[in-house]
Amino acid sequence: MNFLEERIVKDGVVKPGNVLKVDSFLNHQMDIHLMDEMGKEFKRRFADKNITKILTIEASGIAIAIAAARYFDVPVVFAKKSKSINLDGDVYVATVESFTHKNTNQVVVSKKFLSAEDHVLIIDDFLANGCALQGLISITESSGATVEGIGIAIEKGFQVGGKVIRNLGYHLESLAIVESMDDEKGTVQFREQE
Amino acid sequence: MNFLEERIVKDGVVKPGNVLKVDSFLNHQMDIHLMDEMGKEFKRRFADKNITKILTIEASGIAIAIAAARYFDVPVVFAKKSKSINLDGDVYVATVESFTHKNTNQVVVSKKFLSAEDHVLIIDDFLANGCALQGLISITESSGATVEGIGIAIEKGFQVGGKVIRNLGYHLESLAIVESMDDEKGTVQFREQE
Repeated sequence: MNFLEERIVKDGVVKPGNVLKVDSFLNHQMDIHLMDEMGKEFKRRFADKNITKILTIEASGIAIAIAAARYFDVPVVFAKKSKSINLDGDVYVATVESFTHKNTNQVVVSKKFLSAEDHVLIIDDFLANGCALQGLISITESSGATVEGIGIAIEKGFQVGGKVIRNLGYHLESLAIVESMDDEKGTVQFREQE
Repeated sequence: MNFLEERIVKDGVVKPGNVLKVDSFLNHQMDIHLMDEMGKEFKRRFADKNITKILTIEASGIAIAIAAARYFDVPVVFAKKSKSINLDGDVYVATVESFTHKNTNQVVVSKKFLSAEDHVLIIDDFLANGCALQGLISITESSGATVEGIGIAIEKGFQVGGKVIRNLGYHLESLAIVESMDDEKGTVQFREQE
């Protein structure tokens, strides 16, 4: 097990309905040492890529993106969630469905901050069905920038998101891929990664 | 002028209605070097305080809080904005009015992550009328924790928020305090700080 898998086993809580709570260290309270270690690991996994910008989405992706940005030495742009349709023409927009909140958000990035010259690393905390990630990819492609890679903290390997993204040919790295969870025993199985 | 004031003069954009756009380096695209420098400066300004936790609010406060957390070597907790009244009893709640979005949000922090033993540094990107900050203070006080200090990137000194917070006796440090802006000339005047 790597450092993140170990932390999930230690402090993650498995709830019924394939819910994995990691709010004590990843997405409500955030362990600054863990953030730093994740940033360093993303740099190792995307060491051969010439990244010019990190793109993430509010809110919990921001912490990991900022930690990673120190290692890549590039700016972070975060996509904003917006309920309003009333957007001016200066933004890239994607529509993202949230299964957790059972609603649909517009996700926007100002056109000023992504361009055809950019080589983008997309970072987020969770990947399950992949709707948010597809929105970030769509926004990046709209700008003419190149998606050089996608770094995820925790992927739910039993949901379809990761498979779809890999099938599309993107270089996706998830630090921990959960294959299955058992809420009665409180256990988590991870996919083997080299 | 300090580093943040210089950056505001260089890259900030003054818009009619006392709007200061800093989205190219602070709250949409984020300059990782600036984040780091702000984190270091907050550590310098609160060097005598024994901080155990940094509290911020989604979304743009998170980046600054994470940068500061490296210098304080403490976890970050971010308050979540929630429209739903349907909250379980395990959270501290404050009601926050947003003048920008003309709506009201519940702001929540899980009770697991703030306790009477905590010495809290509250961090946010902007302080204007102070509603969000009052919510974070209220949540901290509810938990029995001590507000050791409040670190803000940009304070609008011509609005009431900072004055109220200082009158209440809190140790508030704003890295840049804007006294006035002129959208026709595109100029910004800062309050002198030692």
